[in-house]
Amino acid sequence: MPPLVLGIDLGGTKISTGLVDGDGRIVARDYRPTGAADGPEAVIARMVESARRVLQQAAVMHSQVAAVGIGSPGPLDRETGTVFSSPNLPGWEEVPLRRRIADALGVAAFLENDANAAALAEHRFGAGRGVDEMVYVTASTGIGGGLVLGGRLYRGGNGLAGEIGHITVLPNGPLCGCGNRGCLEAVASGTAIARQGRELLARGIATALGDLCDGDPARVTARMVAEAAAGGDAEAQRILAAAWDYLGIGLATLVVLLGPQRIVVGGGLTNIPGFFEAVRRATVRRVLPPAAATVQIVPARLGEHAGLLGAAAVALDGLGVNPGG
Amino acid sequence: MPPLVLGIDLGGTKISTGLVDGDGRIVARDYRPTGAADGPEAVIARMVESARRVLQQAAVMHSQVAAVGIGSPGPLDRETGTVFSSPNLPGWEEVPLRRRIADALGVAAFLENDANAAALAEHRFGAGRGVDEMVYVTASTGIGGGLVLGGRLYRGGNGLAGEIGHITVLPNGPLCGCGNRGCLEAVASGTAIARQGRELLARGIATALGDLCDGDPARVTARMVAEAAAGGDAEAQRILAAAWDYLGIGLATLVVLLGPQRIVVGGGLTNIPGFFEAVRRATVRRVLPPAAATVQIVPARLGEHAGLLGAAAVALDGLGVNPGG
Repeated sequence: MPPLVLGIDLGGTKISTGLVDGDGRIVARDYRPTGAADGPEAVIARMVESARRVLQQAAVMHSQVAAVGIGSPGPLDRETGTVFSSPNLPGWEEVPLRRRIADALGVAAFLENDANAAALAEHRFGAGRGVDEMVYVTASTGIGGGLVLGGRLYRGGNGLAGEIGHITVLPNGPLCGCGNRGCLEAVASGTAIARQGRELLARGIATALGDLCDGDPARVTARMVAEAAAGGDAEAQRILAAAWDYLGIGLATLVVLLGPQRIVVGGGLTNIPGFFEAVRRATVRRVLPPAAATVQIVPARLGEHAGLLGAAAVALDGLGVNPGG
Repeated sequence: MPPLVLGIDLGGTKISTGLVDGDGRIVARDYRPTGAADGPEAVIARMVESARRVLQQAAVMHSQVAAVGIGSPGPLDRETGTVFSSPNLPGWEEVPLRRRIADALGVAAFLENDANAAALAEHRFGAGRGVDEMVYVTASTGIGGGLVLGGRLYRGGNGLAGEIGHITVLPNGPLCGCGNRGCLEAVASGTAIARQGRELLARGIATALGDLCDGDPARVTARMVAEAAAGGDAEAQRILAAAWDYLGIGLATLVVLLGPQRIVVGGGLTNIPGFFEAVRRATVRRVLPPAAATVQIVPARLGEHAGLLGAAAVALDGLGVNPGG
């Protein structure tokens, strides 16, 4: 019988918790606001409450749960189970989250960053099933990812592998949050797309964005840029086309370096019409035909439950339960 | 007792053969011209002669050799042991090189591309000893490399992983031999450096290169550009500085994606004064401090015997002999 595990995904805005079996079936789930501004103690208490609520719903005892997996935004130290402060989690000064959750629930716990957790989940339950060499990319507010090599999550010699958003794709390009210039994240993330929309308005260029943001450039989002593009706005279309081309450069780099069988792409930007066509085209034209022929670029499949399934996959991975394939 | 293996490195200009023990000691060796223009049959005969000469020198019987490893320029199919035609090897239409060598010598044979072979050799015998997560980069006429992940050569899902020279580092940059624009190889290889030297002359820019090439731009080499730069020529210095900066982008990509403990860089360009300082600086400034702090960028160590030691490492790897560490 496949084990039952708990997955707790700690997000900047919400906590997603689920009781999940080894095949990725969600037996029970709970969503609640993170309330990150209240600080780590309050947030940990909510995570524990959320987990208890899920066990109650499913009428399952703690002792029937094989492990709990925790997905969390970085920076974190997986080995020690410690989470550090970030814009998403103010006040987290080296919080031993793994131990705190394990102690509160009386169950073995494992901690992983959210991008690696999503990679594990897509590999085990989603669009990466059945392949041993898979890269997961999330194209959202930021750009991140995780590498599954030889059927296992690859963390590198420093535990920091898979930072796809910080490949340099445009030397001397826009400044990135990491301090480098021209990172993929600085030119192709949701944040970068919104910034370019605002820049259009600031430069007084005629665009449908002016109406969409009610004349307030500060309110421009990537979604608005996509809406303007869909409505035929040529400037907005150019912004998206450039972003998809840079994503193609990033994916082509993954292909020539790692030769994956499948690249699974998730995140909000993938819902913009034409995303996959444009990104596939931009990738393939930068890669030799034999390598291009062997890689599939496909949408992530786990959708709204990706976070808790990712956390559950961290638990199964921590327990050494092999993916079914 | 460590096994004795034969390594045969098939290069475009020379064949390098050695009898090597499990610790990388060269018991006997032979170098001879490839004579690639004579076609595959003549070249294979020379490889076999070279191997027999080495065994004679060492007074070793075929039966004492555990395996023969072959390093060859790509494209090749390692699984079937087949080498395909390339500018370096004209007329090689799907030549079953592994089987031909195994049959002629009566010893098990393994085939690998030369960059992967060099990566295996540096990991086993050279600058990569003792680390499990290592990237090998060759910066020479072309730019190539190989990945050692988790202590083993990583070939990817398609057998084509590690093509470091074909990372895009300058969108819309110069055309690369692979058909893409702005590959690392197209802006930072010896070939690219020489091309930029020729372009200086073609544009009538005053540079010491004019004298070095005796007024014939077609004769400009990367070595001449390096010589002009060492002599204080500002234009030549700019060409090298740009190349080292692009190499830094490529290495930074390796660091953020793979988090290696060590990057080992070999090839002729590394002998140009200031190479490592400049490339290290360019890499580190594009990588977050925690990742930069955990990676060493060091020179390859195997020098002139790298080819035959690479081929020997392919044999040891094929036999499943673990590196000593």
